[in-house]
Amino acid sequence: GRKVLIVYAHQEPKSLNGSLKRVAVEELSKQGCSVTVSDLYAMQFEPRATRNDIVGCLHNSEEFNYGVETWEAYKRGGLSSDLIEEQKKVQEADLLIFQFPLYWFSMPAIMKGWMDRVLVQGFAHDFPNCYDSGLLKNKLALFSFTTGGSEEMYAKGGISGDIRYLLWPMQHGIMHFCGVKVLAPHICFAPEYVSEVKRKEMLIAWAQRLKTLWKEEPINCSPEWYFK
Amino acid sequence: GRKVLIVYAHQEPKSLNGSLKRVAVEELSKQGCSVTVSDLYAMQFEPRATRNDIVGCLHNSEEFNYGVETWEAYKRGGLSSDLIEEQKKVQEADLLIFQFPLYWFSMPAIMKGWMDRVLVQGFAHDFPNCYDSGLLKNKLALFSFTTGGSEEMYAKGGISGDIRYLLWPMQHGIMHFCGVKVLAPHICFAPEYVSEVKRKEMLIAWAQRLKTLWKEEPINCSPEWYFK
Repeated sequence: GRKVLIVYAHQEPKSLNGSLKRVAVEELSKQGCSVTVSDLYAMQFEPRATRNDIVGCLHNSEEFNYGVETWEAYKRGGLSSDLIEEQKKVQEADLLIFQFPLYWFSMPAIMKGWMDRVLVQGFAHDFPNCYDSGLLKNKLALFSFTTGGSEEMYAKGGISGDIRYLLWPMQHGIMHFCGVKVLAPHICFAPEYVSEVKRKEMLIAWAQRLKTLWKEEPINCSPEWYFK
Repeated sequence: GRKVLIVYAHQEPKSLNGSLKRVAVEELSKQGCSVTVSDLYAMQFEPRATRNDIVGCLHNSEEFNYGVETWEAYKRGGLSSDLIEEQKKVQEADLLIFQFPLYWFSMPAIMKGWMDRVLVQGFAHDFPNCYDSGLLKNKLALFSFTTGGSEEMYAKGGISGDIRYLLWPMQHGIMHFCGVKVLAPHICFAPEYVSEVKRKEMLIAWAQRLKTLWKEEPINCSPEWYFK
């Protein structure tokens, strides 16, 4: 059975994001996958990258460099326990699903903090092992999110620009950098402004997509896909 | 005298980011500006968008919707005190400078949390008052940051793509959405991999730019600037 980690960032279980998360757990479990959820708000996940992420002495206590210190700590097994736990979940997963409401053309800070703190050098990448040779190669990622703005606003030529523009930092800058192959995003546009029936259809469409997810080809994560 | 708010996100005062912040405070003060700094790590600024941001009863306690709740709370003066304080600083500022190390093609989570929590509907935007009619119009913003990757990596055709690609969510998606006009970013590429002399030159170049900053024209914050 395949292993899936859902990194989930919504405060309200009754939200559409909460339902999308539940649908994914149900459908993937039904397929025989083993599914783990990191429910960031429920975990009160710490988003701030600080000295507390390193257990014991610092490599250089004169001038704190977060990237260097977490790299060194990773190598000696000295990262804080919450990070070690998340890294273990990532390590075991074949697929990472990120489920969140779009906040300011990006993920909520609590999820950005997960990226900042979990994907440390030595674990997720290790220059020159980045992009196609990133350390998390052979894994897949999928960004599943809801928007406030409508599909028209996020069309090419729309006031908010092609939705693909804002996927670049998340899909290419983070996942591709770590060697992860990226599946097409799953986007529910403006669920707050549609009917209950439409929202139900959104959940059904997500469950439907998940049925054949493992047959999907990753996108070609290069500037052409985003900015053509 | 003009008013400047520097939103600063680095853990280490001795870092280049710390020096860039100090240089800005010194140079702008010398010009007669009144400068305020929000030192996010020192403030232990909360990045998580939660129910704690609303004082007193919720508008809808059955299903928590962060956007709706903070909007309602803003209107009745019921946001948490840390948010009211940051909003007051923004309100008074003619120029917002964001000083940070680039984390994963974006700002560190602690700064993303500042965006998520401070720029609430009613205060920073209020549909259809967004983009050119956003509520923070007549203000300027400038993103000043350091990178891990080199200028070559962030060139058009480079492995990390044109640095402008990753500016879209921050400059257009956040600042322009709120009506703020955006000055050209100030980027120090890969300071960790250059000599002490080069790093000194970076500080001098920043001070130099600040001398004539008020004469600068904002960029044309449209897809052409980012993706041409």
